[in-house]
Amino acid sequence: MPYKPRADLPSGAFTLPARYYTDPAIFAREQAVFYRRGWIGVGRLEAMPTPGSWIAREIDGDSVIVLRANDAGDVRAFYNVCRHRGTRLCEEAEGAFSGRIVCPYHAWTYDYDGRLAGAPHMDGTLEFSRADYPLGAVRTGVWDGHVFVSLVADGPSLDSHLGDLRAKFRDWTMSDLRVAARQTYDVRANWKLIVQNYNECLHCPTLHPALNRLSHYLSGENEPLQGTYMGGRMDLNDGVQTMSLDGQTRRHPLPALGEADRRRVYYYSVFPNFLLAPHPDYVLTHILWPMSPSRTVVVCEWLVHPNERARADFDIRDATEFWDMTNRQDWHVCELAQSGISSPAYRPGPYSSREDLLYAFDRFVVESLGDV
Amino acid sequence: MPYKPRADLPSGAFTLPARYYTDPAIFAREQAVFYRRGWIGVGRLEAMPTPGSWIAREIDGDSVIVLRANDAGDVRAFYNVCRHRGTRLCEEAEGAFSGRIVCPYHAWTYDYDGRLAGAPHMDGTLEFSRADYPLGAVRTGVWDGHVFVSLVADGPSLDSHLGDLRAKFRDWTMSDLRVAARQTYDVRANWKLIVQNYNECLHCPTLHPALNRLSHYLSGENEPLQGTYMGGRMDLNDGVQTMSLDGQTRRHPLPALGEADRRRVYYYSVFPNFLLAPHPDYVLTHILWPMSPSRTVVVCEWLVHPNERARADFDIRDATEFWDMTNRQDWHVCELAQSGISSPAYRPGPYSSREDLLYAFDRFVVESLGDV
Amino acid sequence: MPYKPRADLPSGAFTLPARYYTDPAIFAREQAVFYRRGWIGVGRLEAMPTPGSWIAREIDGDSVIVLRANDAGDVRAFYNVCRHRGTRLCEEAEGAFSGRIVCPYHAWTYDYDGRLAGAPHMDGTLEFSRADYPLGAVRTGVWDGHVFVSLVADGPSLDSHLGDLRAKFRDWTMSDLRVAARQTYDVRANWKLIVQNYNECLHCPTLHPALNRLSHYLSGENEPLQGTYMGGRMDLNDGVQTMSLDGQTRRHPLPALGEADRRRVYYYSVFPNFLLAPHPDYVLTHILWPMSPSRTVVVCEWLVHPNERARADFDIRDATEFWDMTNRQDWHVCELAQSGISSPAYRPGPYSSREDLLYAFDRFVVESLGDV
Repeated sequence: MPYKPRADLPSGAFTLPARYYTDPAIFAREQAVFYRRGWIGVGRLEAMPTPGSWIAREIDGDSVIVLRANDAGDVRAFYNVCRHRGTRLCEEAEGAFSGRIVCPYHAWTYDYDGRLAGAPHMDGTLEFSRADYPLGAVRTGVWDGHVFVSLVADGPSLDSHLGDLRAKFRDWTMSDLRVAARQTYDVRANWKLIVQNYNECLHCPTLHPALNRLSHYLSGENEPLQGTYMGGRMDLNDGVQTMSLDGQTRRHPLPALGEADRRRVYYYSVFPNFLLAPHPDYVLTHILWPMSPSRTVVVCEWLVHPNERARADFDIRDATEFWDMTNRQDWHVCELAQSGISSPAYRPGPYSSREDLLYAFDRFVVESLGDV
Repeated sequence: MPYKPRADLPSGAFTLPARYYTDPAIFAREQAVFYRRGWIGVGRLEAMPTPGSWIAREIDGDSVIVLRANDAGDVRAFYNVCRHRGTRLCEEAEGAFSGRIVCPYHAWTYDYDGRLAGAPHMDGTLEFSRADYPLGAVRTGVWDGHVFVSLVADGPSLDSHLGDLRAKFRDWTMSDLRVAARQTYDVRANWKLIVQNYNECLHCPTLHPALNRLSHYLSGENEPLQGTYMGGRMDLNDGVQTMSLDGQTRRHPLPALGEADRRRVYYYSVFPNFLLAPHPDYVLTHILWPMSPSRTVVVCEWLVHPNERARADFDIRDATEFWDMTNRQDWHVCELAQSGISSPAYRPGPYSSREDLLYAFDRFVVESLGDV
Repeated sequence: MPYKPRADLPSGAFTLPARYYTDPAIFAREQAVFYRRGWIGVGRLEAMPTPGSWIAREIDGDSVIVLRANDAGDVRAFYNVCRHRGTRLCEEAEGAFSGRIVCPYHAWTYDYDGRLAGAPHMDGTLEFSRADYPLGAVRTGVWDGHVFVSLVADGPSLDSHLGDLRAKFRDWTMSDLRVAARQTYDVRANWKLIVQNYNECLHCPTLHPALNRLSHYLSGENEPLQGTYMGGRMDLNDGVQTMSLDGQTRRHPLPALGEADRRRVYYYSVFPNFLLAPHPDYVLTHILWPMSPSRTVVVCEWLVHPNERARADFDIRDATEFWDMTNRQDWHVCELAQSGISSPAYRPGPYSSREDLLYAFDRFVVESLGDV
């Protein structure tokens, strides 16, 4: 396959200065701009199967409790901080309340809408009214079973954030899908290096020989960056059914999928932390949790159709082992990039025209952060 | 028992801003104001049983050697730093000298009063006089066997610091008591959260069901904050003899104790780091060692009368296991408070009137630290 | 042996203020002044036995690849950073290339002179020329098999840095020697405390009873500090053949050594990080790698004549075990010094006239760093 220039990058399309990957002040600003003000993927709705079940996630230093409030599946989210003396209400990453949210210290009690319902011995306190002390609320939104939260009250809606993505990936019927496997990684690299790694396959021949046998790295097309997301697609080689260890699948294609999408794998980054890779027979998600300028925890989930998961001979290991291997190759080289960029000797280098999304993402980051 | 408002707190009696629990600069100022200039409990005199035996403790970054200087039980304390090239003289937490304090590097040698007695090969050094290089001295004081040190030479005396406490707890004859058990805890919480936890029992029904069976959490009275200490007492329920797993005791009451004090447990905080809880049959102490804004090491000791300890059937486990369980419940909720208060979402919350000592302590801290 | 004042120190010859051992800003300045601008010992040429074999070392945050470029033994050094996206090229401490240096991420490829020989898919990039993106070069130099690098392009030559040392130690024929043993230590002390410890034996009677039996600590002479190095020598006691566990040797003296040098041990510090101790029958080196103000990794190697190493009964343990024991005694007391000096109570103390090199080194450090 001959080389096909993808986009004309301007002269001077270079990687970012090192400080974007190492400076704690820039990291703090990213947290404030992207993670506190954006829509943050936190997990699947099925992780909260019954009213009162919850998950807790840390965003920019705030622990947030995400809660299924009722049988209808309404989701609420609150800061994990009692309004009395600031005690953390939930310690674990997930759990279930029994009708009320009770602080373990002095038993201040909240309902599933966050209202303070009980506050022992506060009746003697001047000017105290329970109505003044609800749990701090956090906005929530759900896209086909993917739960998002936003720490700001006045930002754009999740729908506005997602733009065309709801329509684009409707045929994968992601609301119906269920988690078949999960893997968590602790990566010693900046979260943006992981986003960049996700958005080019120029490294595939060198780093991923197995993947490179399934899809040619110059196949596919990128969609220009859309303000809140970017992505593209790759074509599966002839005879390849999906991305798995042997390129074959033990599962049916997702039922509503058209012929063309059965021959493709998509890779989309919904800023800042949700990476979505729809395959013909499963959907792969990565959720990024930046811990420091040089460390990111990545949670990877494989979603499948419930009919498949219910089969006696269901087996997803061909896909999980393929992607676990590929993930580890990626994290490793991201860590090497973090190390090199952290050296005083590092200088920004030139992007190739196959790295058009990376350059667009860098511009987006630089413009979003402003002067740093 | 009906609710009994204990004190009228002013309107706006709220917990402190988060920075008092998280800011390293405020922590450093607390160390300078409370720990460097105050009287710091370091342990029991019996830990230094013979002349030359010593303990070492770290205060605001300074290691201090506390030494029994002679048979009379005089206590001296010195900075653990050789005057030649700054070498630490003692490495361990306790030990015993053999007549002299000898630096392990070049054998500079000091007597038990800290005087430089030998300095090899310094006779050729211009203007050198051994008299100019004693060990740096630290003030010491003893209260009924509890040893205190103060890093400032010109502060108030220990007697002045203790005020009425010597008289108040005379009947427990603490000089005679001996350590029956010791437990050390590493708590991921600010030292002030531990002091606050120690000074209210409003959390007892929720957090300490066992303790709550021994003493009603609304019993007892607090004494107003006294400038260098604060505290109060609880009444034992009918049929309860002491705080132990079953409320019974295997020990005689302390011999000089009056009838009323045989039915009570006291809890006193001698600022900044010495917590004293006299019981009918034993005395419980907690010594706090702040390590960082969010970490405190706590050393807990149980003191008993030597006649009890000498008995063949002596057993203190009813008290140690009870308090070890209760301590761990307290440290755990202090850690939850530290976590919640460290979140950006934390806002100061309202104190109840049962938390009067906490509000007084907060005021004392804020006024002592000044602008921060 | 009577006390023999070695040099007249001026009045006020005191140890340095604590900040020289604890302040991260001074540490950073030392790294910039001494480690980035000086000549840094990195290891033996024999560690790179064939063309393409390399070692990697970290200097002031920069990883440097040191490479044997050809059969002639020419040494090149480069920053370990790909010019494309900053990826670290080599991960391990040593290895061997196969003809080319290939980046693991996108396969940018460099030759052994650092020239960019291949850059896939960059042909579509505007104004891109491979000639503009060589690996960053680092200067190298070799002294009798000891390899040095310097991160600055315009500093003095290695020959100028070494001054008389090449001539002084010619008789040990160090080019011919081979590494017989290596030991790495992680020392919780500032690198300058290790240099100081290395340059006086006043501590030997206290700290090193075994060493003190082999050479009297007041024997020998120091050479005044020379700008880039300092050192001195000790005399072996009668009947002692070398520094080893029993003072005897299982090896012949180095072949070109004169009678006088067979009775001596030298200790030289080539600033900033190379410590050289020629013995009658082996050469001991210490290379210092400062990790933080309070931590230094030390790599110690024992070099012997290849004829000795080839002998069937070759055994170096008498020397390695002796120096391993002595090293550990030294590191331990350096750690005690670091602890004491880090205390607020530390005050500079007076040097004896046997510590003349230490005072000279302190002056050299202070003058080199300027205002701090």
